[in-house]
Amino acid sequence: MKKVGLADTTFSRFDYAPVVLGVLSESNPEVEIVRYTVPGIKDLPVACKRLFQEKCDIVIACGMVGKMPIDKQCSHEASIGLQSVQLSEAKHILEVFVHMDEAKNDKELASICEDRARKHAENVLMLLFDQKKLQGRAGTGRRQGKEDEGPLRLG
Amino acid sequence: MKKVGLADTTFSRFDYAPVVLGVLSESNPEVEIVRYTVPGIKDLPVACKRLFQEKCDIVIACGMVGKMPIDKQCSHEASIGLQSVQLSEAKHILEVFVHMDEAKNDKELASICEDRARKHAENVLMLLFDQKKLQGRAGTGRRQGKEDEGPLRLG
Amino acid sequence: MKKVGLADTTFSRFDYAPVVLGVLSESNPEVEIVRYTVPGIKDLPVACKRLFQEKCDIVIACGMVGKMPIDKQCSHEASIGLQSVQLSEAKHILEVFVHMDEAKNDKELASICEDRARKHAENVLMLLFDQKKLQGRAGTGRRQGKEDEGPLRLG
Amino acid sequence: MKKVGLADTTFSRFDYAPVVLGVLSESNPEVEIVRYTVPGIKDLPVACKRLFQEKCDIVIACGMVGKMPIDKQCSHEASIGLQSVQLSEAKHILEVFVHMDEAKNDKELASICEDRARKHAENVLMLLFDQKKLQGRAGTGRRQGKEDEGPLRLG
Amino acid sequence: MKKVGLADTTFSRFDYAPVVLGVLSESNPEVEIVRYTVPGIKDLPVACKRLFQEKCDIVIACGMVGKMPIDKQCSHEASIGLQSVQLSEAKHILEVFVHMDEAKNDKELASICEDRARKHAENVLMLLFDQKKLQGRAGTGRRQGKEDEGPLRLG
Repeated sequence: MKKVGLADTTFSRFDYAPVVLGVLSESNPEVEIVRYTVPGIKDLPVACKRLFQEKCDIVIACGMVGKMPIDKQCSHEASIGLQSVQLSEAKHILEVFVHMDEAKNDKELASICEDRARKHAENVLMLLFDQKKLQGRAGTGRRQGKEDEGPLRLG
Repeated sequence: MKKVGLADTTFSRFDYAPVVLGVLSESNPEVEIVRYTVPGIKDLPVACKRLFQEKCDIVIACGMVGKMPIDKQCSHEASIGLQSVQLSEAKHILEVFVHMDEAKNDKELASICEDRARKHAENVLMLLFDQKKLQGRAGTGRRQGKEDEGPLRLG
Repeated sequence: MKKVGLADTTFSRFDYAPVVLGVLSESNPEVEIVRYTVPGIKDLPVACKRLFQEKCDIVIACGMVGKMPIDKQCSHEASIGLQSVQLSEAKHILEVFVHMDEAKNDKELASICEDRARKHAENVLMLLFDQKKLQGRAGTGRRQGKEDEGPLRLG
Repeated sequence: MKKVGLADTTFSRFDYAPVVLGVLSESNPEVEIVRYTVPGIKDLPVACKRLFQEKCDIVIACGMVGKMPIDKQCSHEASIGLQSVQLSEAKHILEVFVHMDEAKNDKELASICEDRARKHAENVLMLLFDQKKLQGRAGTGRRQGKEDEGPLRLG
Repeated sequence: MKKVGLADTTFSRFDYAPVVLGVLSESNPEVEIVRYTVPGIKDLPVACKRLFQEKCDIVIACGMVGKMPIDKQCSHEASIGLQSVQLSEAKHILEVFVHMDEAKNDKELASICEDRARKHAENVLMLLFDQKKLQGRAGTGRRQGKEDEGPLRLG
């Protein structure tokens, strides 16, 4: 059975776990889930590293990024760390980061979080079990957190 | 017994050690503490590396960041280094960095330093001994250095 | 027979595969192609790593970059990851990244994508089979995605 | 006997070596010094790597940074390299970088260079022989290149 | 006999090879030269890695950087890669990067390219054969691509 890691943070104002667990629970074949919560996004790379040490095949890392320039810098550092973990393990980490300045209010922010988490949880399953389906979507302008843009319109 | 590293700097205008040591001294189970002081934040990553070589299970790295653009660059370099150490050790470093431009005056700055150090020292203990408690806080908008923001308000 | 990896994304609004496969299919000597599709550009480095694990000799990584500052940051993180993979494998990854703000409309964007993908697919073949030809082009101001600028005009 | 590396550049308009050698020559216990001069700051990381290969216990890396944005970028790349060397060796490199835009004129620039080099040479000795003294200075607002700021004033 | 790698690009509008080869051909002792041409600056790090695999003792990496912000980002990624190669090999790569916005016209740009390439080729030889000469130049404000600035004027 494939093992999926879910890493999240106490900093985030949105609880991604129910969304991700909802998608993963409907997977066929079934997947095992291991969860790891840390304070903030900069703690996610080592959390993912440890999830891979527990034999996860893939990890979904969920975090929220504040509005200040320093927060952007932190997200950059976290993402560099996530790259490093992926390459040392040769395994995917899907990054569900939502920036607080992506939305005008809490409701819109929650909607972005939900959409991004759900679609990336679906991507987790495609990467594990259905790479042909992902390949069929190449170049089709898929978006997580908002509506798909679709392929270029050349007509 | 778990061993906690405390790395700090002579550059900082706030002495984080009493705050951190205060929280850690009340830990149950008891923890052993190893301290390492360096000149500035860019010296912290190798200090942490050496603390892990002395068998620390986790490190709390406390520093202060100046107000100039070059200081931001230094904090970025320090943070990239801290990511690298964490991933090579697969162990957490909680970063207590306070930027001098976060506050209007020395008093406010001290208050931010104290709050961030205290809460991250508590996070150290939860990461070591009580991951279930951290998980219960996922998505609840916790902040270190200021008041919690709480979960998104959707009502 | 040489093996070429093609990594692409579902985020992209342009489907690079037909262009790349077209060029590679005309290669003499013949090349084997392995394809790997991922959600976005930040997933490309680990996709390339895995393509090298499948014995690819070189990889062409095709992605599209959005218009927002955060998208630029993502492309930077992806590129750092691609550097890291190349150096650990000592093998080339040609990066076909097109930024959505390079063009005024969808038609121009498609034309940039096509040109960049085609020329870099040609570069893949030169790197594999004809390094002398590349050397003959050194310092001649070649461009992918637009017209060549040519050598400096000193007359 | 401890061995100290001194790396410097031909790009710098200030000759740091006499200042550093002056401080180190007064060390008790005595230290051995190995020197390595390179063209510019981006050549310093590998110079430091090679100094550690010659069994240095610590290195002081002295460079000057130009005034243009590209110079800032170069200093960032050099600093990332210096982080990487330190972590692979688990040994300190004290970075004495002076930016040409820190001063209004050559005289002020020389004074910053002298002060920063001297105080970091003193830090080298404390890191090697007197970590307790450094610890006593934690949180006291020490500065290299200008006057100490001192601890936060809370009165 | 020492082996020098020369890596260059087809993107560059200036052909650095004749300048570099001219300087190296006059070296006493004689050096062997290995050349590797790639499409652009982001392909240089792995080219250098491969030159070291062919037993080069040092590499000179010549590239040109476009005028757009994305070009600056690419040069940063290339430079980070070059740092990484140098540190894994503990060998120098002298970076001859000329930015297209350094000059007002093609003629001035060619002159910067020629000067930077020639002086760094001379640095290659000093690093290989005459480190004492480099040390004698420490702190003397040497520049590649323009006139030396000389040491600080304190009179």
